[in-house]
Amino acid sequence: MTSSRPWVDDGNVALFTDLYELTMMQAYVEQGFDEAATFSLFVRKLPARRNYLVAAGLDDVLRYFETVRFDRAAIDHLATLGQFNDRFLRRLEDFRFTGDVRAVREGTPVFANEPILEVTAPIAEAQLAETFVMNQVHLQTVLASKGARMVRAAEGRAVVDFGPRRMHGTDAALKAARAFHIAGLTASSNVLASRIYGTPATGTMAHSFIQAWEREADAFRAFVALYPNTVLLVDTYDTLAGVRKVIDLARELGDDFKVRAVRLDSGDLAGLAHESRALLDQAGLDSVQIFASGSLDEDAIAAMLADGAPIDGFGVGTKMGVSEDAPSLDIAYKLSAYGGQGRLKLSTGKPVLPGHKQVWRSEQGGRFDGDVIGRAEEDRPGMPLLEPVMRGGERLPGGHVALDDVRAYCREQIGRLPDAVQALAPADPPYPVRVSDALRTYQSEVRRRVESVPA
Amino acid sequence: MTSSRPWVDDGNVALFTDLYELTMMQAYVEQGFDEAATFSLFVRKLPARRNYLVAAGLDDVLRYFETVRFDRAAIDHLATLGQFNDRFLRRLEDFRFTGDVRAVREGTPVFANEPILEVTAPIAEAQLAETFVMNQVHLQTVLASKGARMVRAAEGRAVVDFGPRRMHGTDAALKAARAFHIAGLTASSNVLASRIYGTPATGTMAHSFIQAWEREADAFRAFVALYPNTVLLVDTYDTLAGVRKVIDLARELGDDFKVRAVRLDSGDLAGLAHESRALLDQAGLDSVQIFASGSLDEDAIAAMLADGAPIDGFGVGTKMGVSEDAPSLDIAYKLSAYGGQGRLKLSTGKPVLPGHKQVWRSEQGGRFDGDVIGRAEEDRPGMPLLEPVMRGGERLPGGHVALDDVRAYCREQIGRLPDAVQALAPADPPYPVRVSDALRTYQSEVRRRVESVPA
Repeated sequence: MTSSRPWVDDGNVALFTDLYELTMMQAYVEQGFDEAATFSLFVRKLPARRNYLVAAGLDDVLRYFETVRFDRAAIDHLATLGQFNDRFLRRLEDFRFTGDVRAVREGTPVFANEPILEVTAPIAEAQLAETFVMNQVHLQTVLASKGARMVRAAEGRAVVDFGPRRMHGTDAALKAARAFHIAGLTASSNVLASRIYGTPATGTMAHSFIQAWEREADAFRAFVALYPNTVLLVDTYDTLAGVRKVIDLARELGDDFKVRAVRLDSGDLAGLAHESRALLDQAGLDSVQIFASGSLDEDAIAAMLADGAPIDGFGVGTKMGVSEDAPSLDIAYKLSAYGGQGRLKLSTGKPVLPGHKQVWRSEQGGRFDGDVIGRAEEDRPGMPLLEPVMRGGERLPGGHVALDDVRAYCREQIGRLPDAVQALAPADPPYPVRVSDALRTYQSEVRRRVESVPA
Repeated sequence: MTSSRPWVDDGNVALFTDLYELTMMQAYVEQGFDEAATFSLFVRKLPARRNYLVAAGLDDVLRYFETVRFDRAAIDHLATLGQFNDRFLRRLEDFRFTGDVRAVREGTPVFANEPILEVTAPIAEAQLAETFVMNQVHLQTVLASKGARMVRAAEGRAVVDFGPRRMHGTDAALKAARAFHIAGLTASSNVLASRIYGTPATGTMAHSFIQAWEREADAFRAFVALYPNTVLLVDTYDTLAGVRKVIDLARELGDDFKVRAVRLDSGDLAGLAHESRALLDQAGLDSVQIFASGSLDEDAIAAMLADGAPIDGFGVGTKMGVSEDAPSLDIAYKLSAYGGQGRLKLSTGKPVLPGHKQVWRSEQGGRFDGDVIGRAEEDRPGMPLLEPVMRGGERLPGGHVALDDVRAYCREQIGRLPDAVQALAPADPPYPVRVSDALRTYQSEVRRRVESVPA
């Protein structure tokens, strides 16, 4: 059976899951496993070039929990798979998420093994959600974390997301604009994101516009007539000749010339920026800024600025948009408690911290100086990062956040990390995160209990 | 203005575009640029570890061209951006794609600079589409190309897509199942893909199911009662102890034991596979297969098989799902003709082949031995790869393809590449692709014309 709507949306997102979530759900239902389970979402290990991650994606997770339903078409499809009995399929008709969620605020810097969120719900409900919850937090955390590096590298200059064309699919490009806004980027070229999230949209012209005209100068003139304070792309044929045509246009238009910037998109960007700046300044156009784009990442930006390149803003596309140097995180959503008991698995190299957890972040002189991951009920100094955001399937006040508040909070929180952790280079030593004695003791207890069960 | 529907779908996909496409469109409209433009979609350079790419994504492109519309909400949103005049916004109400598309068939192996598709349409229509067309062909080509490497590495064994949780967003995970099906994977864990594309869905149990029980053996017994011919995950606590519990269960159940396989998901997979195989065989369970998963990619699969690891199937997740070693392609959608004239840009390092093009693939003894990229109207030997798939905004018969036909075609086409090109290691020399003399001559002519235009 095929459908012609190749989109994931509110109507079918319940099926956006790995088949094993559903086979396990049916087994839980058949065997009367309906006690509360807690699943912890965390990243096992940071990529080599990430001193911290920016947690993002919670809003989509909560929205999913609020709205996920199996409609008739979904249930009919599951029936065709030959694995599900009528009793289970009928139960899916009434499926609702009724659980609780505790989470760190979106925009919070997080580190390895720190829970980003913990879901506590009847085990079947929490199990179904695994695929979507991981997918969204993974994507948005990958991108917010990468975006924060661009912002760092640009040292206060504008950084614009040009990535939608080579990000992985439409959902990634949409959520990217959101994640990059959290991370502090200036704007995105993504028009749909501006509608859905209210993120600033930006963009002026591509090479094709220039090429459609016989003469580059005519293309500039026509575009400026329509968009006086635009950014003109000058590298279609010869970058410096393009800049000279902009200067000619300024002379022609006099006071009506309001062009905001030229954009360089190929060649030796730093060198061309120096030469373009000199040409513009000689012509008295020191208010015309220089914008650079083309295969940029944080390293290229940092290198150009270290070189003194007179660049006022950056358009960053693919390398940020797919997080080229670290496109995935070792993120996990693991059962850590069931029926009131801590749970863990012993699989080689994949340790789990059992039970309900909390992260306390301490500070000194306004800067964070270390985290402790402990049992939720411990009484510890420091700021607890996980807070209740959903109870009984309903969002709590802490689960509602305005995107601009998340952005401001993120900036402020990153600014409170130690300098070496904020930097692009690997922090040595890394930000200190330890597991509390109480949690270590509990982990040993649970481990002993699991190991002591006779085969 | 924000909306609460964080999805891209038929209703809003017209806004899934970079803002500059719309500012250029308005400029084209204002300035009466309504002649036919041709845009070529191609990859400039293959990633280091790709001897060929598998073209994919055309069906979504054609569906977009058939359905893209600006609804009232979209137009109202654009009005808020302050850049669009009423005349243009009114024209968007009637926007339809009326152009032609020529494309290589999905599943075709393609190489650097070969057009994957060419769109010929009034320039504003072809311009708007850039972002979506690139996004979908890029994603699906990245993933089909990566997936084909897994199929190669597995040498006929099953390879299953376990990636949805860490792919970049929901659209990527959905389209991935499609792309991997084209590339020859056995199945996907993605349930929604099975509904939308009819791809085989697979999956049985995760660690959480085992952990929810006090005893692993009880978890196995309960699961098998519900799903007799399932795959049991044996590494939650101790892999070989897990295998022994499966053997105990086989003794207990006798003829009712129908378990298809055990799955190893951590540790030294090759070593554990050897030991597990030995245990199973000693117990007379030689029909129980061994399935391996956990951070696999084509190199890990090839290394294990080269080592003689007795593994019958592989679950591959993140590294395939994000194409970890090459998450992006240098793909471009470039104006190559306007108003009947070839166009190109001269930007450093980014050459464009002007005009309407064709690719001819020649063969010898049933194997492909080289491609020529030429002008569409040339009369050349070899099989032309681009064929008309849409005319006047309507799909032609060649634009309708059944996914299973694409899969079969892809397998057959890959099998006709030279052995070294099919291999995982870089082909040296690479597959030969040359530009025809006629196209080189035309490129020089266009270049001379562009350069001769007085400033």
